[in-house]
Amino acid sequence: MNYKKTICLLGSTGSIGTQALAVVDEHPGRFDVDLLAAGSNVDLLARQALKYKPRVVVLGKREGLSELAHLLRNTGIKVVGGEELEEEIRFSKAEIVLTAMVGFAGLLPTIAAIESGKNIALANKETLVVAGSLITQLAQKKGVQIIPVDSEHSAIYQCLVGEGGQVVEKIMLTASGGPFRGKDQAFLSTVTPQMALKHPNWIMGAKITIDSASLMNKGLEVIEAYWLFGVSASSIEVLVHPQSIIHSMVQFGDGSIKAQLGLPDMKLPIHYALHYPERMTNAFPRFDFLRYPTLSFESPDIKTFRNLALAFEALEKGGNMPCILNAANEVAVAKFLEGKIGFTEMSNLIERCMENIPYLAEPSLEALLETDRETRQLAGQTKH
Amino acid sequence: MNYKKTICLLGSTGSIGTQALAVVDEHPGRFDVDLLAAGSNVDLLARQALKYKPRVVVLGKREGLSELAHLLRNTGIKVVGGEELEEEIRFSKAEIVLTAMVGFAGLLPTIAAIESGKNIALANKETLVVAGSLITQLAQKKGVQIIPVDSEHSAIYQCLVGEGGQVVEKIMLTASGGPFRGKDQAFLSTVTPQMALKHPNWIMGAKITIDSASLMNKGLEVIEAYWLFGVSASSIEVLVHPQSIIHSMVQFGDGSIKAQLGLPDMKLPIHYALHYPERMTNAFPRFDFLRYPTLSFESPDIKTFRNLALAFEALEKGGNMPCILNAANEVAVAKFLEGKIGFTEMSNLIERCMENIPYLAEPSLEALLETDRETRQLAGQTKH
Repeated sequence: MNYKKTICLLGSTGSIGTQALAVVDEHPGRFDVDLLAAGSNVDLLARQALKYKPRVVVLGKREGLSELAHLLRNTGIKVVGGEELEEEIRFSKAEIVLTAMVGFAGLLPTIAAIESGKNIALANKETLVVAGSLITQLAQKKGVQIIPVDSEHSAIYQCLVGEGGQVVEKIMLTASGGPFRGKDQAFLSTVTPQMALKHPNWIMGAKITIDSASLMNKGLEVIEAYWLFGVSASSIEVLVHPQSIIHSMVQFGDGSIKAQLGLPDMKLPIHYALHYPERMTNAFPRFDFLRYPTLSFESPDIKTFRNLALAFEALEKGGNMPCILNAANEVAVAKFLEGKIGFTEMSNLIERCMENIPYLAEPSLEALLETDRETRQLAGQTKH
Repeated sequence: MNYKKTICLLGSTGSIGTQALAVVDEHPGRFDVDLLAAGSNVDLLARQALKYKPRVVVLGKREGLSELAHLLRNTGIKVVGGEELEEEIRFSKAEIVLTAMVGFAGLLPTIAAIESGKNIALANKETLVVAGSLITQLAQKKGVQIIPVDSEHSAIYQCLVGEGGQVVEKIMLTASGGPFRGKDQAFLSTVTPQMALKHPNWIMGAKITIDSASLMNKGLEVIEAYWLFGVSASSIEVLVHPQSIIHSMVQFGDGSIKAQLGLPDMKLPIHYALHYPERMTNAFPRFDFLRYPTLSFESPDIKTFRNLALAFEALEKGGNMPCILNAANEVAVAKFLEGKIGFTEMSNLIERCMENIPYLAEPSLEALLETDRETRQLAGQTKH
């Protein structure tokens, strides 16, 4: 196989970014890394740059720039700050951009990638949550493919391969249920950041791990699925499946259900997205049913895990409501991690923002940026 | 939808045949039934003919012909004996032939259908078991699609939709394990036909129900899968899954597994095969995970259920060996149902035939017909 793909990695030092580079390592010579972007981890970004020799590296945190430039002196690698990220993405000749930045920060770089005609390996679900309507319209206009990297959406994407034009009756998003599955509100109010940072199945970054424990991650995924797959909100169902083996399912109009499954290993959906439409053979560990002899399923407890209900509510209301939900949640998670609010107070804070930030039915990009700012301000001021 | 499909149903009064007509009923005006063929059930065949108004009905059993002709007098429906079946299939203008006859008897009519360019909805697995090489070559030459109706193969077929050209690493055929899962040889030797005719999940004809209890059905399915999907014998794995919800799975070269699942209802794969490539919306009952909260998996016990090991052995040897296996099994099942031999003696009889009938590496159709005759003769003479 001589064909080479040129890629940009946004968020290269994070959990998804480092696993993406492991996927690149799996097939030496298959990928050219053109751009690596990270927030603040200068050391790791420098090491990655020395190994993968990108055209340019981008660092979000201004204070680290001179150190990074020093570490990469005499390499010919261009070193720039975050304010040049969008321009560098537009300039790049990459065919695919992996968007693995955390939270709302992924929105504008993703837009730059789509506008410049690059396919997206989407690992930043907040982009679609906040601006799903704008993003999907833009991608359609530019003829750009959005290939999901979230394991659930990758599963659905894989189940839909070759089924174009068939009626999709239901999408079943599976959820591990997180570390507090089966617990009640009283227990949740005692949860510490340390407890919430231990996910039973997946190894992920801090923000998404807290979101998984609160089921907000599943709520964001519901909204993401809505935009990616063009189904109605009422045809998206969340199903708790503690083993995280079946990554998600699609039920078609004839009642037939297709599922995609495997080990809970983010390298697999990353591998799929980067190599798509080819399923390149790899040497990653294989799933073995005899080591998982039982798979189980149950309904999510949306009374205890209120974030999931709030996400469905935001999706039903539409407009800037998912943007409010997302911004309030980002602040809530940060406050929880800093020990400023309790676990269950995250839902209160989000709900308060959803009630108080002005609703806009068809917000422009500028209006969404403003909603995001307003919500963060309100959420920042709110005690809990 | 104004497009009509014309179909022939071979084995219309059996379990698959009657369910196929229920599928036809689900979408009135969608199918034209051109030919109905049955073995001996005159009453039911006559009632089906009066309802579906085929061009021709075919009855295998000569003695019932005059009664059938009497029941269908003045209808304009042609009534013929089994010796004219192949000619009527060739003459038919049907686009698809559902082959749901029991056992070896399905082979020649299936060849007639393929030779006359009709697609096959294959419910007669013995056809591929006996003559897989000839049948698949012929289908390829004639540009004919073979769409499997067995729930397992339909599942695999559905998992492969849109994955053309991708590496298939493994096919996982699920098996309920039958009513005697977990039992030992001592128990099996006490099994009566009445006990074996009770399948835990599927409602099927007598032959296939006994084959399911002895795991020979799964063995025949392994051979069927080998021919349908062009994979090596060693990449076909049998996995016991007592709930029969996951109908089978495919593991691709990237480690990703796709599964097709749903209620254990034969109408679903029949519906899929007859409507293929469209997934027509239907009102059949839907699967609900909350009613099946646990799915479990285990290895098959091929020491106790020797038929499965014999089938793998026949597949590895190839040539006329699967034909010998199949013919010996048909006689063994008949003898068991008549109370002439015990449950475990079926494997002995099959093994004896596999050892004693001359092996042919590349048999012609005539040689296979001869192997079938010889095997039946030997099996008929053998005490057990």
